[in-house]
Amino acid sequence: MEACTKCANPKVIIKRKQSGQALCKNCFIESIQKKVIKTIKKENLIDKGDKVLVALSGGKDSVATLDILNTYKERNIIELCAVTIDEGIANYRNDGVAIAKKHTKRLGIEHKVLSFKSLFNTTLDEIMKIPNHRISCSYCGVFRRWIINKAARDFGADKIATGHNLDDEVQAILMNYLEGNINNLTMIGPKTMSYSPLFRPKIKPLREIPEREIGLYTIAKDLEIHLAGCPYSQESFRGEVSEIIKNLSKNHPTIMYSTLRGFDKIKPALKKEYVADFQFDSCIKCGEPSSNEICRVCTFLDELGKEVAIR
Amino acid sequence: MEACTKCANPKVIIKRKQSGQALCKNCFIESIQKKVIKTIKKENLIDKGDKVLVALSGGKDSVATLDILNTYKERNIIELCAVTIDEGIANYRNDGVAIAKKHTKRLGIEHKVLSFKSLFNTTLDEIMKIPNHRISCSYCGVFRRWIINKAARDFGADKIATGHNLDDEVQAILMNYLEGNINNLTMIGPKTMSYSPLFRPKIKPLREIPEREIGLYTIAKDLEIHLAGCPYSQESFRGEVSEIIKNLSKNHPTIMYSTLRGFDKIKPALKKEYVADFQFDSCIKCGEPSSNEICRVCTFLDELGKEVAIR
Repeated sequence: MEACTKCANPKVIIKRKQSGQALCKNCFIESIQKKVIKTIKKENLIDKGDKVLVALSGGKDSVATLDILNTYKERNIIELCAVTIDEGIANYRNDGVAIAKKHTKRLGIEHKVLSFKSLFNTTLDEIMKIPNHRISCSYCGVFRRWIINKAARDFGADKIATGHNLDDEVQAILMNYLEGNINNLTMIGPKTMSYSPLFRPKIKPLREIPEREIGLYTIAKDLEIHLAGCPYSQESFRGEVSEIIKNLSKNHPTIMYSTLRGFDKIKPALKKEYVADFQFDSCIKCGEPSSNEICRVCTFLDELGKEVAIR
Repeated sequence: MEACTKCANPKVIIKRKQSGQALCKNCFIESIQKKVIKTIKKENLIDKGDKVLVALSGGKDSVATLDILNTYKERNIIELCAVTIDEGIANYRNDGVAIAKKHTKRLGIEHKVLSFKSLFNTTLDEIMKIPNHRISCSYCGVFRRWIINKAARDFGADKIATGHNLDDEVQAILMNYLEGNINNLTMIGPKTMSYSPLFRPKIKPLREIPEREIGLYTIAKDLEIHLAGCPYSQESFRGEVSEIIKNLSKNHPTIMYSTLRGFDKIKPALKKEYVADFQFDSCIKCGEPSSNEICRVCTFLDELGKEVAIR
């Protein structure tokens, strides 16, 4: 039996195919934290004194993000706060909300739960019963981004941290390569720019950590997480692409890293060539930032015969 | 039963999933020829008066390339010549050579068969028996490019036309996306630049035709082709990527086109950002163009205890 490559502890919990490294629990936890810190430094994701809002669903990725960013809070480098979105999905979201509350209470982190119901006067469950509705992920993505950005301003947060992991990032890159969507490609990355004073930049501290290692991190640290998958999830193309990457990784264990590194070289070239200066204005209905007169949230709500309940 | 979308002929030979078009034999042949002509115009692959050398293996792609470029020759737009490489692979290459000869004789096209044996004093069969040899495709690719470029100069040809099809091109793009190989990505495209006066530019007239449609074209036009696969073929990563694209195309019939279009937007940005002015010199051993003092052909031959037989 192989021992830990770093400390020779015989209790190994992971053997990394991509590097050959074998690690015990403590060395694995340390290696994940160091790797995230390295990403944060390299990509300049956090400045001293920042207030960072974690988009906390209660799933493994966002719980790990909160846990690791909390080490920055403990060292008084940043302030931390968290927001959980309640889309209104019966038998699913309540468990995630409960877990999110437990973590923020335990760590003494300011936390809000914001619901589609309170902000848009409807729930995802209700929307899915309306005839001719769009696919669930369209509403959810658009509504969630709107709420999180507004919450960041209300919290006085400088940045929004999301739990996007290496698998998520490589899936998005490959999907857009295959679809030839240059515009989307220019928007993938460790940090989104703020095109309007109403926008708060988003950061992805876990961008270089494979999904399975984040799962293992939450187990190793005994962090409670919400494991259920969304009952409405139906992103079939992403699912296909995810399977492709998983299968390729079996014979090519470093392929997610090589794809990411390649993309990170392609992206600056694309930004120079294709990104014009975005002109962001405010939506005339809800006042949130929008590149059109009416933002997508208000457009979608209008289709559903609803409107934003709070300005 | 569906009739031809263009002429209502009830004898349909293809139903294109990507466009919904159904075509009879004659309309299909015409559509392929028109599409190739469109690529040639759009990418400015051929100038009036060019002498074009077709790299003619006898397989479906190169036979279709010869057949379609011959329509340019018939209209006195270009001169045409062809070269076939005999790598020295028993029970494989002779059939391809014989088919190549038949086509060039039938069309009255100047044709040379050049062998690894006559130029390098060895054959691929012999090399594969030498201990610690590289994979066969390394020798074959490097040696073939050297011979074809030299042949183009000897023929007085302005361009080299190869049979690369849409599948080949998208495979190369995706392989290099996944490997993060930016340098290779900058070299994929409808036309290679000539970095040295010793280089002849290569063009890919079939770049936008799916492999299966090229196969169907040779059947529809009753063109004899060499069907056997190379016995040494072992490009496993290309094979995996090819399978991925085939599987994705079932549910997403336009995915090869969207990937190609996306890449064609990415490439100019990459070239601006990453391509320095290549300095090509001549190999001090064989005199052919090389970015190093000794070219890859001479390096490989040296490893094998051989050298170029003709200067």
